[in-house]
Amino acid sequence: MGIHAYFQSLTDLERIIRCPGRFKFEEHSVSAHSWKVVQYAKTLADIEETHGVAVDWKKLYEVTSSHDYGEIFIGDIKTPVKHYSLELRAMLQKVEEGMVAHFIDEHIPEEFKPIFRRQLREGKDDSLEGRILEVADKLDQVYEAFGELQRGNTEPEFVVMYRLALIAIKKVPLHCVDYFLTHILPDMVAEGSRCPIDIEQITKEALAS
Amino acid sequence: MGIHAYFQSLTDLERIIRCPGRFKFEEHSVSAHSWKVVQYAKTLADIEETHGVAVDWKKLYEVTSSHDYGEIFIGDIKTPVKHYSLELRAMLQKVEEGMVAHFIDEHIPEEFKPIFRRQLREGKDDSLEGRILEVADKLDQVYEAFGELQRGNTEPEFVVMYRLALIAIKKVPLHCVDYFLTHILPDMVAEGSRCPIDIEQITKEALAS
Amino acid sequence: MGIHAYFQSLTDLERIIRCPGRFKFEEHSVSAHSWKVVQYAKTLADIEETHGVAVDWKKLYEVTSSHDYGEIFIGDIKTPVKHYSLELRAMLQKVEEGMVAHFIDEHIPEEFKPIFRRQLREGKDDSLEGRILEVADKLDQVYEAFGELQRGNTEPEFVVMYRLALIAIKKVPLHCVDYFLTHILPDMVAEGSRCPIDIEQITKEALAS
Amino acid sequence: MGIHAYFQSLTDLERIIRCPGRFKFEEHSVSAHSWKVVQYAKTLADIEETHGVAVDWKKLYEVTSSHDYGEIFIGDIKTPVKHYSLELRAMLQKVEEGMVAHFIDEHIPEEFKPIFRRQLREGKDDSLEGRILEVADKLDQVYEAFGELQRGNTEPEFVVMYRLALIAIKKVPLHCVDYFLTHILPDMVAEGSRCPIDIEQITKEALAS
Amino acid sequence: MGIHAYFQSLTDLERIIRCPGRFKFEEHSVSAHSWKVVQYAKTLADIEETHGVAVDWKKLYEVTSSHDYGEIFIGDIKTPVKHYSLELRAMLQKVEEGMVAHFIDEHIPEEFKPIFRRQLREGKDDSLEGRILEVADKLDQVYEAFGELQRGNTEPEFVVMYRLALIAIKKVPLHCVDYFLTHILPDMVAEGSRCPIDIEQITKEALAS
Amino acid sequence: MGIHAYFQSLTDLERIIRCPGRFKFEEHSVSAHSWKVVQYAKTLADIEETHGVAVDWKKLYEVTSSHDYGEIFIGDIKTPVKHYSLELRAMLQKVEEGMVAHFIDEHIPEEFKPIFRRQLREGKDDSLEGRILEVADKLDQVYEAFGELQRGNTEPEFVVMYRLALIAIKKVPLHCVDYFLTHILPDMVAEGSRCPIDIEQITKEALAS
Repeated sequence: MGIHAYFQSLTDLERIIRCPGRFKFEEHSVSAHSWKVVQYAKTLADIEETHGVAVDWKKLYEVTSSHDYGEIFIGDIKTPVKHYSLELRAMLQKVEEGMVAHFIDEHIPEEFKPIFRRQLREGKDDSLEGRILEVADKLDQVYEAFGELQRGNTEPEFVVMYRLALIAIKKVPLHCVDYFLTHILPDMVAEGSRCPIDIEQITKEALAS
Repeated sequence: MGIHAYFQSLTDLERIIRCPGRFKFEEHSVSAHSWKVVQYAKTLADIEETHGVAVDWKKLYEVTSSHDYGEIFIGDIKTPVKHYSLELRAMLQKVEEGMVAHFIDEHIPEEFKPIFRRQLREGKDDSLEGRILEVADKLDQVYEAFGELQRGNTEPEFVVMYRLALIAIKKVPLHCVDYFLTHILPDMVAEGSRCPIDIEQITKEALAS
Repeated sequence: MGIHAYFQSLTDLERIIRCPGRFKFEEHSVSAHSWKVVQYAKTLADIEETHGVAVDWKKLYEVTSSHDYGEIFIGDIKTPVKHYSLELRAMLQKVEEGMVAHFIDEHIPEEFKPIFRRQLREGKDDSLEGRILEVADKLDQVYEAFGELQRGNTEPEFVVMYRLALIAIKKVPLHCVDYFLTHILPDMVAEGSRCPIDIEQITKEALAS
Repeated sequence: MGIHAYFQSLTDLERIIRCPGRFKFEEHSVSAHSWKVVQYAKTLADIEETHGVAVDWKKLYEVTSSHDYGEIFIGDIKTPVKHYSLELRAMLQKVEEGMVAHFIDEHIPEEFKPIFRRQLREGKDDSLEGRILEVADKLDQVYEAFGELQRGNTEPEFVVMYRLALIAIKKVPLHCVDYFLTHILPDMVAEGSRCPIDIEQITKEALAS
Repeated sequence: MGIHAYFQSLTDLERIIRCPGRFKFEEHSVSAHSWKVVQYAKTLADIEETHGVAVDWKKLYEVTSSHDYGEIFIGDIKTPVKHYSLELRAMLQKVEEGMVAHFIDEHIPEEFKPIFRRQLREGKDDSLEGRILEVADKLDQVYEAFGELQRGNTEPEFVVMYRLALIAIKKVPLHCVDYFLTHILPDMVAEGSRCPIDIEQITKEALAS
Repeated sequence: MGIHAYFQSLTDLERIIRCPGRFKFEEHSVSAHSWKVVQYAKTLADIEETHGVAVDWKKLYEVTSSHDYGEIFIGDIKTPVKHYSLELRAMLQKVEEGMVAHFIDEHIPEEFKPIFRRQLREGKDDSLEGRILEVADKLDQVYEAFGELQRGNTEPEFVVMYRLALIAIKKVPLHCVDYFLTHILPDMVAEGSRCPIDIEQITKEALAS
């Protein structure tokens, strides 16, 4: 059915809820998450540019906006599952890629096939844009977990999620990561001082690890 | 933390929604589904008993009530994914079993470990009880799809789901399957005559295939 | 319409929310509750068996899985109403039984009528299985109330609900009640130490009363 | 705790959903229903006044705004239950009145007790205002059922609900009922001509019965 | 389409959520809010009557029940927007009045037009009834904000909302305001002593300002 | 509080529901809408590029991702209000711009102020990117309305919304609009042939107008 099939499929991501099975005070859909990743990445790239780094905006646009499109086919598989074995993780990624490839083969008109193949591949590579995507994706994990801790969610998983995302961000060598750690994170920690869980301590431990 | 960890984990299945990503007029949690499977299985087993077949009620209790417990660990992975490759399906089942085993090792007291290992294993084997579970599980798929079609849901996936579940039921050699096909299904089809999709036709095709 | 009418009616219990009118951080349907009761009862019966007590698994299956089916007809009437007068309580139970009987008369085929009459009667009698059902039902009340207190729900009703359920459990003479009080409850109380309400104190008072 | 206890209890009616257990495309809380009854009654009383009938607005205010307050204590018991036996219905009403009386005794300051006793009693008597309340209450039942039929809800209960409410309205001797039957209902039926159920036929039958 | 168009439009207010965009533990529709305002106003007017003040109950009925009807046309525009400039606020009110007038012109039968014009105009004037409406409307703002603070909502906006509503109430010269400040508010503050935010301090500051 | 205030504010758009007050089978948040606009715009720009038109991807990124950010401050004001008077519309836009400017002044660090001022201004100008944004925004209106019509929503507003969006798209002189009209829209209309409303007729009329 051509591009229509693609456009219509986008709505599916509004119905996939992140972090399924956990008690949450606030639920987030994959599409809302994707939009926030696009927004964070824009500002992170702006920070890179203020340091004189050249950003390929077309590439950044493509990798951030589509980075979770594959979940239309496989859903939001629980993170612990994905990490349970490297073998499974690799196979899941292969299956997701296979289903995306199949969708393109079947629905996308010939002249757009190369474009869609480029856009819907996994974007987290070692390029500047791939690294910005990695940071933006983890940043939303930080904000989602922080939102729960702030409201008194006692599920230990959100502490783990907050900590792992911070550790992952810290490791990416980018100017915008330095900016985040020195200017944005302290504001978040200060705001978190009113919440029942010791955000400051968890943050310190994550940054020290 | 012992049995408490197990009891508390049950609530997680109330938060996992079946058939993620599809538009549905009515959502069903895995726990509500599991309860209906328990109920269907009870009546299916009653039908077997009226034909003089002996039912192991303890085994039936165990396999039906826990049959989707593993989804606490891996979530409701989309059916097309599970069927995409036999290899992936086998690996997912292995991972789920691994995570269940790990949960039992860590949380269940020594004296109950054998019991939990028996209860939380995959129950759809060739025994009478395993076949009743298979039918009861597919029966709920029939009812869920029927509920959507009846209300005018135009997603083609629900027609597929209805048809595949009927075909799967039809193949299981049980007295209760005969009863379902001759006494229960005709009532459902009659009720579906008011709905915008031709339930009768889809049903006929599924039974003929 | 035969068994189809019964199978289809099961979905109604997914739409009846327990504890109507109260503010809750998390809502529970009657069907999700029923499934958890089935699960608790299974483990409670396992505990009895480890003490050499013989369990009638068919009976346990029947009484636990159907114990709230009658709510399809009368809804989840608020607990204070049920306890307001013994006279009303008796009459409500009579009406519920009357409506269940009427449903069986009208919908269930002749050969299954005796089975359904046995299964859909009130199961909380003095038999082992009836007592296990009583404990499993109250256990879910404990977990539902605990889940609210843990998240900071300030409605006094949940403290009352937690306390009354504990008192009711304590009074049932069963091996599994001893196990619950000595092995499961302490884990829950320990976990509750992070919550704004003094779970330990409420628990002590309930056990002493 | 005085009037505060009363004011705070009002929010409970936002959490009680009408017609529990049925599949509905749109849910209505008791408080939203109560507000619409207040609004309908105002216009119905305006119609009476244009026919020269004197309306006691204070009384109308009191009976319409509080007419379902008692549901805070007993919830929205399913209509079939209420009608199952005259005996039960009478007892439920007695219990509801008893719980309201108890609430007033315990919470309302001495000087306001007579006022609250008058306001929170059952308002559907034979006075003009009582009859307007009866019509307004049934009118909302008509609109709720119509809203479901219009969207293709196939539950037979909504046809029954629409029909019974029309029959009840028709029997009340009021100018506003004549106005409703000749001016408002035809507009509704005309609008319903696009819906899958034959609203015109059901309406005709109800008016003829 | 006559009065039917008006009656049917009432349901729209069940779908407009107050305070859009903020995180809330509990959402309130405009229709539920309107009903609570009707209820508060009734008791506030009762208090006035106990001080010998004459209340025009028909007028009070009209102004309270319809006071937010205009939101059907313009929605619940965020409070900060309304207060951003006096100019915009005046224009929004003019537009709302224009849309209400247009609705009456188009839908309401000739003989009821004057009645609807009187009922659907802005009711917060200097009359006794207008002032009671102002207090009742702000009282619901107090209860909505209190409900969030009590459950640990950390959004600073709810503290602001609570404070501004108290200040607005305090300024209205009515016997019922004195009663609220001396009898109702202290009960609320006492209840709030269990909540994570210092309700007593905020209340004192608001009353002193 | 710097960039943190901006990042955290993004979640507000997940809580603002589009088209408030209307009955909808499926609700869409402003953030989910924004993400779909980003996705449509990407493909529309790809189509332009295949016709040799140069796209400024950085600008396109900025205007599409932030195009509804201002709704954080003023909410989703109902479309009829915005169109009621040109004067009000202009004033609302001025107020929105004022509130965005105020947010930037107060929260955004000095070195990023010019970037945020550029990004958060109204993007629908006559540039290629502004026109693509206009088409992408209207395209989502088409899909949202289509989704309701397809499921049998009888609210006339969705027909109006579908038609007006098509008319607006048709007027924008772009290669991608031609592509949409000749390749995408026919697929949608074909799919709509199963729905109760005559999509083909409405589409023809809109294209002819």
